[in-house]
Amino acid sequence: MKRVMLTVAYDGTAYHGWQIQPGAVTIEGKLNEALTELVGHPVQVIGASRTDSGVHALGNVAVFDTSARMPAEKFSYALNQSLPEDIRIQKSEEVPLDFHPRKVPSVKTYEYRIYNAEFALPTKRLYAYHTYRQLDVERMNEAAQVLVGEHDFKSFCSIHTQAETTVRRILAIAVTGKEKDICIRVRGNGFLYNMVRIIAGTLIEVGIGRKSKEDLLRILASCDREVAGPTAPACGLTLVEYAFIDV
Amino acid sequence: MKRVMLTVAYDGTAYHGWQIQPGAVTIEGKLNEALTELVGHPVQVIGASRTDSGVHALGNVAVFDTSARMPAEKFSYALNQSLPEDIRIQKSEEVPLDFHPRKVPSVKTYEYRIYNAEFALPTKRLYAYHTYRQLDVERMNEAAQVLVGEHDFKSFCSIHTQAETTVRRILAIAVTGKEKDICIRVRGNGFLYNMVRIIAGTLIEVGIGRKSKEDLLRILASCDREVAGPTAPACGLTLVEYAFIDV
Repeated sequence: MKRVMLTVAYDGTAYHGWQIQPGAVTIEGKLNEALTELVGHPVQVIGASRTDSGVHALGNVAVFDTSARMPAEKFSYALNQSLPEDIRIQKSEEVPLDFHPRKVPSVKTYEYRIYNAEFALPTKRLYAYHTYRQLDVERMNEAAQVLVGEHDFKSFCSIHTQAETTVRRILAIAVTGKEKDICIRVRGNGFLYNMVRIIAGTLIEVGIGRKSKEDLLRILASCDREVAGPTAPACGLTLVEYAFIDV
Repeated sequence: MKRVMLTVAYDGTAYHGWQIQPGAVTIEGKLNEALTELVGHPVQVIGASRTDSGVHALGNVAVFDTSARMPAEKFSYALNQSLPEDIRIQKSEEVPLDFHPRKVPSVKTYEYRIYNAEFALPTKRLYAYHTYRQLDVERMNEAAQVLVGEHDFKSFCSIHTQAETTVRRILAIAVTGKEKDICIRVRGNGFLYNMVRIIAGTLIEVGIGRKSKEDLLRILASCDREVAGPTAPACGLTLVEYAFIDV
């Protein structure tokens, strides 16, 4: 028996998110199916981040146990033969049998992409949120810095959360622009349900001048979801990296 | 009566190319439908570039005539309300009644995108061609320069062409790489059927070391499609700009 860790990239457009659900097509479901067929015994992966419906990933992580003799490194090649083309394993490697991706300290990096132009661009529509309202990138970036550090992010968390605590640590956040393409890049040790999308929705309001850096401080202190901005659409969000910290 | 010029962006993935065909969904067909419904009389656009099945555009051009009183500049907003989200008008403007987009000197800019990594990345799969063979970008760029200037591009033209002459002028070509993303950008006064995709397919063979700069010179001189590389897949190709030269 061995435990194998997969680095998984996907286009979330066609999926009801990561987590397996009856009657819905999910990334986890597709991985379980492909693995079960490949190794010849039932497999259930354990995912690191249960991304929402429509959210993309360059490097989500999943582990599974198998008695198959195939070397861990070969699983990427074998799985990519049978997975649909909107899911691709980027790497497969052996990890200790007690390694659990959600119980090990980690740093997650997300990017929220915005296409800021009068009209939407079809070739960007699946991976960026389009808004015609002109955004002030510098203003967004400056305001965003108040989120860095350890805070209670209850205001930036969907009320449907099951989290025990709403305290998280943001290590870095940067809002950058290149012509019409804007990117909010955020790194942290953990994120609450919808947290990055609510941060993006709130920073967009800062970018159009409807909210200020001071508002952001007040929102953070209020611990009230109602005062933050809207949850920005899922299509703009990508889980870029899920990295484990060596303890 | 007035003539209106549209700058049209589209994701070609779901279309059988630009040109209207019985029983096939095409960009031209969708534009004619949307315009006919909008202005209340039958409209047939004249397109500048009849892009192939699966090819994308940021700025293709079409003109049409209408007796509608709507100002030319408003057509972009009105059409984007009814067009599918994979087609978006970027600009609409009035042009002289005798303006014909294919009969006016123009400069076309195409980009062919390659994702060069061991495994494909789902979020890039629709807009770049994936190859795991490692490409030498500098070697590709150096060899590509032999194509600049006026040449008979018969070797780089699908045998199905209906063109009267296969002589074309390439103004500039550049192969650039940024990590795993490679882009072949080419500007010219006209391109033959499949020409950019055959150039891309041939430069990929240069990039993997199977062909050289000297081979490219020989291919050009031979005027024989058989000796050039394969036609690279449509998904990697985007018509970036179609600009008219003021005479």
